[in-house]
Amino acid sequence: MQDFQLHSQLQQDCFLLGKFKLCQVLLVNDRQFPWFILVPQRHNIREIYQLSADEQILLIQESSYLAEMLTSIFNADKLNIAAIGNLVPQLHLHHVVRYQNDKAWPAPIWGKFAAVPYTEQQLEELLARLTPLVLLQ
Amino acid sequence: MQDFQLHSQLQQDCFLLGKFKLCQVLLVNDRQFPWFILVPQRHNIREIYQLSADEQILLIQESSYLAEMLTSIFNADKLNIAAIGNLVPQLHLHHVVRYQNDKAWPAPIWGKFAAVPYTEQQLEELLARLTPLVLLQ
Repeated sequence: MQDFQLHSQLQQDCFLLGKFKLCQVLLVNDRQFPWFILVPQRHNIREIYQLSADEQILLIQESSYLAEMLTSIFNADKLNIAAIGNLVPQLHLHHVVRYQNDKAWPAPIWGKFAAVPYTEQQLEELLARLTPLVLLQ
Repeated sequence: MQDFQLHSQLQQDCFLLGKFKLCQVLLVNDRQFPWFILVPQRHNIREIYQLSADEQILLIQESSYLAEMLTSIFNADKLNIAAIGNLVPQLHLHHVVRYQNDKAWPAPIWGKFAAVPYTEQQLEELLARLTPLVLLQ
């Protein structure tokens, strides 16, 4: 974890929910989609293949744990999982809960809509729903 | 692999380049982007977390192998890796070689442009460039 610092854009756009062994777990401040990001706490990594073999295994384990929890908590129709990083170079893995009636379906959500921040009350309610996720870290 | 059959839409849109231990390796027939897809040869799987723990490890190993090879072969500025699957339910993992001067940069490419198929000559040249990838399977 030495020298790891969360990228300023991710700090600005997200709330830190907690930490897994490898990754920070972020909630994107956009109430249009339940949207989470895993960020491996490693310095100067841009692509998944730049992680060590063990870190790659941790990454997919933490991603699958998060994805399964999100599917259950939000009753998702589909998860969209992606490492894009064209704008924010620090490796980060999107996990977006999708519904067949959400505003972007069936298109991917990235780069389509300006974020709509949560109200304080929405955020409180959401964090309460996420308790099982946070407890099991 | 029992009962696995490549989804008809992937059959239609892609060329089969070869097979890793877990995944089929596909080339998308769109000359606008060097665009590859890994499809785990498992029946009725829609999300990564539905694979067994060992299969998940194979998936990230095969993905990282492919990503590193593509970065080298195509001198990529960035890889975009994603499991979306809103339209084609069979689990498949996109690997798109991106350049800072490609036609979609910095946006993701999915759902933006109609595919432009390779000419026969382009395809031949591309397959020659991919020889190192194919040889090392």
